[in-house]
Amino acid sequence: MHSTRRKRVIIAGMGFGGINAAQELAGSGLDVVLLDRNNYHLFQPLLYQVATAGLEQESIAYPIRALIRNWYNLSYQMGEITGLDPASSRVLTDDGELVYDYLILAGGSVTNFFGNQGIARHAFDLKKLTDAERLRNSILTNFEQASREVDLQKRKALLSFVVVGGGPTGVEFAGALSELIRFVFRNDYPTLRLEDSRVLLLEAASSLLGAMPKRLGSYAEKRLQQMGVEVRCNCLVADATETEVHLANGEIIAARTLFWSAGVKACPLAAMLLGEKGPGGRVPVKSDLTLNQYDNVYVVGDMACFQQDNRILPMMAPVAIQQGRHAARSIISREQGGTAEPFHYLDKGSMATIGRSSAVATAFGLSLYGFLAWLTWLFLHLYYLIGFRNRIVVLLNWSWYYWFHERQVRLITAVSQTTKEPGDQ
Amino acid sequence: MHSTRRKRVIIAGMGFGGINAAQELAGSGLDVVLLDRNNYHLFQPLLYQVATAGLEQESIAYPIRALIRNWYNLSYQMGEITGLDPASSRVLTDDGELVYDYLILAGGSVTNFFGNQGIARHAFDLKKLTDAERLRNSILTNFEQASREVDLQKRKALLSFVVVGGGPTGVEFAGALSELIRFVFRNDYPTLRLEDSRVLLLEAASSLLGAMPKRLGSYAEKRLQQMGVEVRCNCLVADATETEVHLANGEIIAARTLFWSAGVKACPLAAMLLGEKGPGGRVPVKSDLTLNQYDNVYVVGDMACFQQDNRILPMMAPVAIQQGRHAARSIISREQGGTAEPFHYLDKGSMATIGRSSAVATAFGLSLYGFLAWLTWLFLHLYYLIGFRNRIVVLLNWSWYYWFHERQVRLITAVSQTTKEPGDQ
Repeated sequence: MHSTRRKRVIIAGMGFGGINAAQELAGSGLDVVLLDRNNYHLFQPLLYQVATAGLEQESIAYPIRALIRNWYNLSYQMGEITGLDPASSRVLTDDGELVYDYLILAGGSVTNFFGNQGIARHAFDLKKLTDAERLRNSILTNFEQASREVDLQKRKALLSFVVVGGGPTGVEFAGALSELIRFVFRNDYPTLRLEDSRVLLLEAASSLLGAMPKRLGSYAEKRLQQMGVEVRCNCLVADATETEVHLANGEIIAARTLFWSAGVKACPLAAMLLGEKGPGGRVPVKSDLTLNQYDNVYVVGDMACFQQDNRILPMMAPVAIQQGRHAARSIISREQGGTAEPFHYLDKGSMATIGRSSAVATAFGLSLYGFLAWLTWLFLHLYYLIGFRNRIVVLLNWSWYYWFHERQVRLITAVSQTTKEPGDQ
Repeated sequence: MHSTRRKRVIIAGMGFGGINAAQELAGSGLDVVLLDRNNYHLFQPLLYQVATAGLEQESIAYPIRALIRNWYNLSYQMGEITGLDPASSRVLTDDGELVYDYLILAGGSVTNFFGNQGIARHAFDLKKLTDAERLRNSILTNFEQASREVDLQKRKALLSFVVVGGGPTGVEFAGALSELIRFVFRNDYPTLRLEDSRVLLLEAASSLLGAMPKRLGSYAEKRLQQMGVEVRCNCLVADATETEVHLANGEIIAARTLFWSAGVKACPLAAMLLGEKGPGGRVPVKSDLTLNQYDNVYVVGDMACFQQDNRILPMMAPVAIQQGRHAARSIISREQGGTAEPFHYLDKGSMATIGRSSAVATAFGLSLYGFLAWLTWLFLHLYYLIGFRNRIVVLLNWSWYYWFHERQVRLITAVSQTTKEPGDQ
């Protein structure tokens, strides 16, 4: 028996923030418990490639238990958090309650449909692994149905894809989908006319990639148009049905697929904390990333509302990574009698890929576009992807696509469930 | 316009029989239509490796449209066959009817629970890609639940796996599962005691691998026992509940997982044909694989009941491959004015892998076991797997496992659906 109990840190959520905090806390002498409803870390930036048949879903996920084998004093518990009680330092889960000395909340974000029920019901989004599989299944099924559909209008609707939101996710998905149709489906469906297929990218603001320098947004727009994507800026979506997308200007687009990447908000975990919230339901934090009322509760990543240089930091992976590490170091420092340093985000830049050999990127104030930006994007994503085997599989798929214009994961997988179904009999 | 209509061959089912018939008919001048409810060919012999977290599901499936790109005069139609009308040479599908000049029925088999409702309801089987994903999810979820379960009896039931059927599938699954637990889960779940986990392999006959020479069955039994599998021959399963497996001798085994590989029968397509059926609902065929009443309808593979040397050919891939090719060649020959040759199965042997570096095989009357049999198994499976990229991914996974004792695809994937669900918000 130990004479003193080791102090316990709970990390809720194994996204970029959580996993970096965990790595930092490994071997620190603290007892660290990782909570997540999924038994894997998901590399969300490549979800769009799973949705467009470029990558198998397994290659962008990594089992948490495989990660923590190499890290000391960490344990993983699969489960759902049902409540937070910071006053008594407890986390409630579907499997009982856990007491902590420190808590790091890193639950990430969910899609924000801004209360529009029609859009929420009919739109696809990309936050979870199943979202990507579902979207891929739907795209492929639409093409299969179109190949048998004799009515031209219905066929055109099946082949029309409306992408809403001109940020990195929208740009990347629209580009990858357009290439899937032009390079792969062109050969797969020789009886379909490519001219009957449309990919529209709709953005409410006046240009794409609003967070980047204007000329990168213009470059992306031009490249996407060359690839056959209809880009419309200053365009607002008002509603959706199963077969139509309604624009705010009254126009109706016949399309069976609506993809929504026009907004995110803090995950439901944020609402379990009392107190006022920032934009998108994010939790306001102090300069050291702790809550105002509870200095043993850290909030990092998309959940946290952190202001720096008069702007709220965006909901993106690099912020989560740096905040996760900072929270962990801060806890270690306090345990060693030190003080909590304020967090400062170092903006190394951002990037988006548009298509084969084409991307845009900013790095330390420099703007890159074209082939060099694409290579940079490629290597950085391979670098941040966890698992050596995953890197090889992803690199293999990318090379395959680059040389043969072929994406092999175009499978329509059936309904699968985590629980037993009755036998087929 | 052609002055004469090209004759049409419909192939129903894209398993081993259908795909080999299609390849043979490609470029023959006949119009060939491929029907399958799935848009991919599935390499069923490796399903058990998907179920035991060794392979991603995408690596053992290959898109049909990718295959037929390189083959002439073939088209694919995704759909379900709802009826057969051989008198008027029509196939009814969920998308209308198709007229044929020749029909090749290659629908394969489904699991046979022999009418036992309890077993059908609670048992897992391995025929479809989703079966494998569902089984993998369940095995992993059981271990996650066990790691939180305080009741010893419940924990033991979560960690107990009953495999019924000592044929190749049962032997391969039991071996792979045992290794998953001993090599991978041992490290993943340090708080669980391995002694609380059981893998039982139950066989009704007096030895394993009944279709092989007796000493190979004995070798498999000994190897499995060394790997910690409890092998019981002369053991019949009577019924099952969610938490128990009831044996015919009255014994009750507490186990949350029952895997059934003790029987297959012809797929429902067979019952759409009138006339008497053979054992397992298989369709009796003439020596040239056509129906007695309709010489333009061929039945191949698991669906066909074909007698040779006074025994009915077994339901296995090599038979389906040879019969698919034979049916196609027979059609081509008849169209060129030739006659239909009788089918003769050339038994090249059979094999089953038991674990790492260990397998049994027969080849042209010779018996092999141990490392050499395992290497043979490995290369033959890579050879028959379709798609060069798939072969690389599978080889990568196998090497990884061989060197690192690590199976990385141990992900619990959530419910996924082919159709849209309401958005989360």
